[in-house]
Amino acid sequence: MAFLSSFPEIEFSRPLFAGILGNTALSMVPGISGAGSTPERTVFTPILDAELIVKGEIHSMGYKPNTPTNCPTPAVITRSMLQLCGIEPVFVNAGMFNRPTVPCLDVYGDAGADPRQGDAVPRAHAIFEAGKRAGRLLSGCADLLVLGESVPGGTTTALCVLRALGYDARVSSSFVNNPVEQKEEVCRAVVARVRESGVTDPLDVVRIGGDPMMAVAAGIVCGFSGEVVLAGGTQMLSVNAVLKGLGERMAPLATTEYVRADASANFEAVAASVGAGAWYVDPGFDTIGDAGLARYCEGEVKEGMGAGGAILLARIMGYSEEEIRSAILSTVLSFR
Amino acid sequence: MAFLSSFPEIEFSRPLFAGILGNTALSMVPGISGAGSTPERTVFTPILDAELIVKGEIHSMGYKPNTPTNCPTPAVITRSMLQLCGIEPVFVNAGMFNRPTVPCLDVYGDAGADPRQGDAVPRAHAIFEAGKRAGRLLSGCADLLVLGESVPGGTTTALCVLRALGYDARVSSSFVNNPVEQKEEVCRAVVARVRESGVTDPLDVVRIGGDPMMAVAAGIVCGFSGEVVLAGGTQMLSVNAVLKGLGERMAPLATTEYVRADASANFEAVAASVGAGAWYVDPGFDTIGDAGLARYCEGEVKEGMGAGGAILLARIMGYSEEEIRSAILSTVLSFR
Repeated sequence: MAFLSSFPEIEFSRPLFAGILGNTALSMVPGISGAGSTPERTVFTPILDAELIVKGEIHSMGYKPNTPTNCPTPAVITRSMLQLCGIEPVFVNAGMFNRPTVPCLDVYGDAGADPRQGDAVPRAHAIFEAGKRAGRLLSGCADLLVLGESVPGGTTTALCVLRALGYDARVSSSFVNNPVEQKEEVCRAVVARVRESGVTDPLDVVRIGGDPMMAVAAGIVCGFSGEVVLAGGTQMLSVNAVLKGLGERMAPLATTEYVRADASANFEAVAASVGAGAWYVDPGFDTIGDAGLARYCEGEVKEGMGAGGAILLARIMGYSEEEIRSAILSTVLSFR
Repeated sequence: MAFLSSFPEIEFSRPLFAGILGNTALSMVPGISGAGSTPERTVFTPILDAELIVKGEIHSMGYKPNTPTNCPTPAVITRSMLQLCGIEPVFVNAGMFNRPTVPCLDVYGDAGADPRQGDAVPRAHAIFEAGKRAGRLLSGCADLLVLGESVPGGTTTALCVLRALGYDARVSSSFVNNPVEQKEEVCRAVVARVRESGVTDPLDVVRIGGDPMMAVAAGIVCGFSGEVVLAGGTQMLSVNAVLKGLGERMAPLATTEYVRADASANFEAVAASVGAGAWYVDPGFDTIGDAGLARYCEGEVKEGMGAGGAILLARIMGYSEEEIRSAILSTVLSFR
């Protein structure tokens, strides 16, 4: 495939990258999330991602930023692109179990609860409004906002919200073998809870069955005055589904070819039925020269922390495909 | 006095106002702080100030933004100026006992402990570094940063830090009758602790006897690439004393004539010995048409949440003295 599925025609002079950090208790359910060496540790991954991107190393826990199978975490890719572009990223804390180790624009949300057992995001409407204000604030700093996220377990909440909003979605996973049955089981329980409650407002759907990132991301898109690119796969698709349900503008998506190619999911079809445009980035990790990155092509990791959108940003800022590939490889090798 | 003691020659095209929120446990000691209807409630004042400025009303607690003697809180003045200038303020959470009700750039500090009993800001060096990063982030948004603060009890920590750094300071108060003896008693205990510890690094002095705002404000001044104006009285003077001790650039101060005129303090003399420039704003509250504002001239409240600096900002953005006075009065009356 081409490096970019099509070249975005976006006019901008001040680009900004923001990454939303969020937790859902679902990531601690064994089997749901691959974003951490143990289920309990998955909740720290957004914090470590942000620390890696800002500081270029993970002081606070002594981890290597690679998966157990030696795939680089996608935050490494995001870091390499932001370094290449000279962009100082902003992190937004949507709701976490633990305190981040880098400064964040904090909307003072709570970590998402297990949506099978009660409201996942009781303050969904309030943090949507806080997200709007965050978006207005960022409008003073940029006219293009590439918005990524790091929410372990978030593809499962995305499945719940997309289904509850009526989309025939199947969602991606950072595992090679997507734990589809386990996600479906969670989803059946959550969709049943949404149906019983009789809600129709999409923020009520997030309240019952989503995660804090969704409400905050939707708010930021509403509050930001310039162009927004939602950098991510099915999780960002769920944000667009929420925005559509609210009657607000949607934002185009940017994600990796590895998400589109995931046969266990149906990203492209759901994007089409939501009506959201999408760009797909194929950085050619099969030939880049790192065995861990090559595993992305076999369906491992695939995307995360806005990596696909960060690559797209570098490209539209004028960096060549080879400059981009070379920056990714050298950053990945520096963490080996 | 003239509206401005001298007209600042600052070149800028993108001004920003930021307010740092912080707590010190000292504000809960009865008699120390006038910033709240009871000593226990003083710790909420920064949160209510920020909420008032952002939302134009205080939802979360049902207070009127006026002191028991019906003086408007200075945040009302700051709000009126930011509304006049069309500036969306950023709040920075340096360390609070409670969660703010508006989004903040959060450095994940802790509320300051009572410096008589142990380290006031154990992580002073870490939040100074986080403040630097916050300053770098804000550099992408503005070339002029007017930096205010809201830290009840903060004049007492300022006294401790200024004295421990060797300045013969007496500090201001929001009370008409400055509780000088009580502050001196705290200060003696804290300066003795600093002397015993043998520290000389100014951030160690803040660690032992200051408050989180000081470390974060100093970091922001170091990290911000454009011009900074420290909007406040003796508390911001202590920030400059820290910066000078670190060998870093200081930032000019902007405060009200009511702080300079405070005979219980010696702001102008200490500013001179620190070597920090200062502008004084005299908005003529005696003739503005509100009895509560007139009480500022008799020494009540005097300053807070960067009110003096916000007035200066409006003036250098080109608003006339009469436009400024009229905006302040109408905002104050809207809260009566």
